[in-house]
Amino acid sequence: MEDQSLKPIRCKAAVCRTPGEPLTIEEIVVDPPKAYEIRIKIICTSLCHTDVTVWRAKDNPSLPRILGHEAYGVVESVGEKVEGYAAGDTVVPNFMGECDSCESCLSEGTNQCTSVPFTMGPGMRRDGTTRFRDSQGAPIHDLVAVSSFSQYTVVDVNQVVKVHPSLPPKLACLLGCCGGTGVGAAWRLAKVQPGSSVAVFGLGSVGLAVVQGAKMCGASKIIGKEFGVTDFVNPSQLGDRPVSEVINEMTGGGADYSFECIGVSSVMTEAVRSTKPVDLTTRIHAISGRGKTIILGLEMDGQPLCLPSFEFLFGKCVMGSLFGGMKPKTDLPILAEKCMNKELELEKLVTHEVDLEEINTSFDLLLQGKSLRCIIWMDKLHFR
Amino acid sequence: MEDQSLKPIRCKAAVCRTPGEPLTIEEIVVDPPKAYEIRIKIICTSLCHTDVTVWRAKDNPSLPRILGHEAYGVVESVGEKVEGYAAGDTVVPNFMGECDSCESCLSEGTNQCTSVPFTMGPGMRRDGTTRFRDSQGAPIHDLVAVSSFSQYTVVDVNQVVKVHPSLPPKLACLLGCCGGTGVGAAWRLAKVQPGSSVAVFGLGSVGLAVVQGAKMCGASKIIGKEFGVTDFVNPSQLGDRPVSEVINEMTGGGADYSFECIGVSSVMTEAVRSTKPVDLTTRIHAISGRGKTIILGLEMDGQPLCLPSFEFLFGKCVMGSLFGGMKPKTDLPILAEKCMNKELELEKLVTHEVDLEEINTSFDLLLQGKSLRCIIWMDKLHFR
Ligand SMILES: [Zn+2]
Ligand SMILES: [Zn+2]
Ligand SMILES: [Zn+2]
Ligand SMILES: [Zn+2]
Repeated sequence: MEDQSLKPIRCKAAVCRTPGEPLTIEEIVVDPPKAYEIRIKIICTSLCHTDVTVWRAKDNPSLPRILGHEAYGVVESVGEKVEGYAAGDTVVPNFMGECDSCESCLSEGTNQCTSVPFTMGPGMRRDGTTRFRDSQGAPIHDLVAVSSFSQYTVVDVNQVVKVHPSLPPKLACLLGCCGGTGVGAAWRLAKVQPGSSVAVFGLGSVGLAVVQGAKMCGASKIIGKEFGVTDFVNPSQLGDRPVSEVINEMTGGGADYSFECIGVSSVMTEAVRSTKPVDLTTRIHAISGRGKTIILGLEMDGQPLCLPSFEFLFGKCVMGSLFGGMKPKTDLPILAEKCMNKELELEKLVTHEVDLEEINTSFDLLLQGKSLRCIIWMDKLHFR
Repeated sequence: MEDQSLKPIRCKAAVCRTPGEPLTIEEIVVDPPKAYEIRIKIICTSLCHTDVTVWRAKDNPSLPRILGHEAYGVVESVGEKVEGYAAGDTVVPNFMGECDSCESCLSEGTNQCTSVPFTMGPGMRRDGTTRFRDSQGAPIHDLVAVSSFSQYTVVDVNQVVKVHPSLPPKLACLLGCCGGTGVGAAWRLAKVQPGSSVAVFGLGSVGLAVVQGAKMCGASKIIGKEFGVTDFVNPSQLGDRPVSEVINEMTGGGADYSFECIGVSSVMTEAVRSTKPVDLTTRIHAISGRGKTIILGLEMDGQPLCLPSFEFLFGKCVMGSLFGGMKPKTDLPILAEKCMNKELELEKLVTHEVDLEEINTSFDLLLQGKSLRCIIWMDKLHFR
């Protein structure tokens, strides 16, 4: 499989050089893929809150850096020892890996590959180096070994998922992070049962994907607002009443599942309180299972999740996971198919679309709360 | 099945009349069982922390009260509509019910029967009345509709589990609360897998029963101290090091399961931290599943369980349940058999034995931390 002819590619990328400052569109160099690596031409990508978090972080030792991790592309070339992939394959790069042979990948209990483990730190996961250089030849760091805000990127073979070429690029892109995380959280992590009740706290992209996932799993009552949700709670009309009390009434004893998709400590607590049984002090007539709460939001203010411990005595469960507990190579193709046959309607997560040169607009829109997902098309500026 | 000849029984009981004061041994009257009820001659019982909690509670509106809920006895008579039980059956009364026909009892998802639901409040669960009167004819309240600190008691048919007469009475008794809760938590709730690692925080009766349950499930490393435990952590020798760090080293990345059996908020947090993956900041090489923490202790100081929410992002799970998630009628007979064939060694939980008239000694021993379980034999004073 080795191809000595593989050459560096010059292309455009959006580079983060200063925390919180607009990305600069630069011409960069993308090295050829090494062994077990794949070079991908990115078709489209989108901006996720995690990118914003890394972009904002002060004292970031890993600048300059190419952000982006929710994307869709086409294989441009493969490195040595890569099997089963060829130029032209349509793929979704993923921040999680799946080697399909380590103890973890063979286990049902986790989606965290231990042969090439996940890390938030920069560097390709096998050797810690980067494949990006700027026009002066200085290294540019990557993000979660994906870095999709570049027209070309290099990704470990374990992190590349093949999808059917007929899957619309925007949908493929969303599956790579928010779509996969939200749908997976309902499907693989909570294992939402048909006929059950689901409360979703926070209806951003991940929350709306949870709603789609819950619907796909056959939930009969989905509490939140709009877009497939069956019941609506407007916190501004609650006054002093806790949301959990309202959900208790709407579900006859509490939701079977609740999902926290915001990352606010007090909302996490309320999400746990909203699951069955809500009322622990009186006779309980409405329990037919244990309430499960899935924590998807990442609390950024350092506030811990606090719960009265007796909440657990009646069988409640709190859990979480990266990427909704999904194994990327095993599970993403299944969701891709469900997107194609309309069991999943992730289109509605896309509120804006821009070209790479306007990428900073997508930051503005997200920060102002004006967008859900803004698709960034990489084509227009493409040249080599 | 109706028996018009059923008469009240006069017998001895230990009655709680004043919060925190010694129980008084009194002659009381136990009414005949009503429909769906069984009158049981208690052979032995033991003192549990929950009894102590109720005994201590100030402003208790339910005094006088007969405490006790971990017991073994023989059916004396059955009320109308009771099927499948007859005088002479050896039984374990249980604070949980199992009707075997409601939605919850038919579900795998919960052990909380909803047709005759659990309550901590006094009163038989179908009509809220008591079967106990004192010598002046004044009502005496029950505890969790079991009240085993009496030579005779009346229990709902849903709360009575038949066990084989060859099961030693002491072991049968323990299965009714601490033994069942601890073993069940490992077996039914955590579903401890063969070869896994288990950390037990708090080695009182419930904690030691967890150890036995984990052993029964095939755990290969059980961290705690003594009695079947494979590895030992002495917190007094840790200095400033968190226990989770030591457990991280001992298990190569964190325990697969941790159990909090004390009821102290900070220990709950440490128990969650001790499960895999302990270290979220560096590359993780030792994960082959998600850490599960089971909360069994009831926090009494009103301190909530607080956790950095990112603990959940790597797939950790926190859960709890009453009675270790066990369905009493389904699961207790299985554990009874495992006691008889020595797969479970609960004998060691029994550190003391007294007669009913010395019952206040069992309170002293527990409060002074001198006992695990103290068996109280009801025979000696028996008369009718
Ligand atoms: Zn993301
Ligand atoms: Zn793997
Ligand atoms: Zn107990
Ligand atoms: Zn039932």
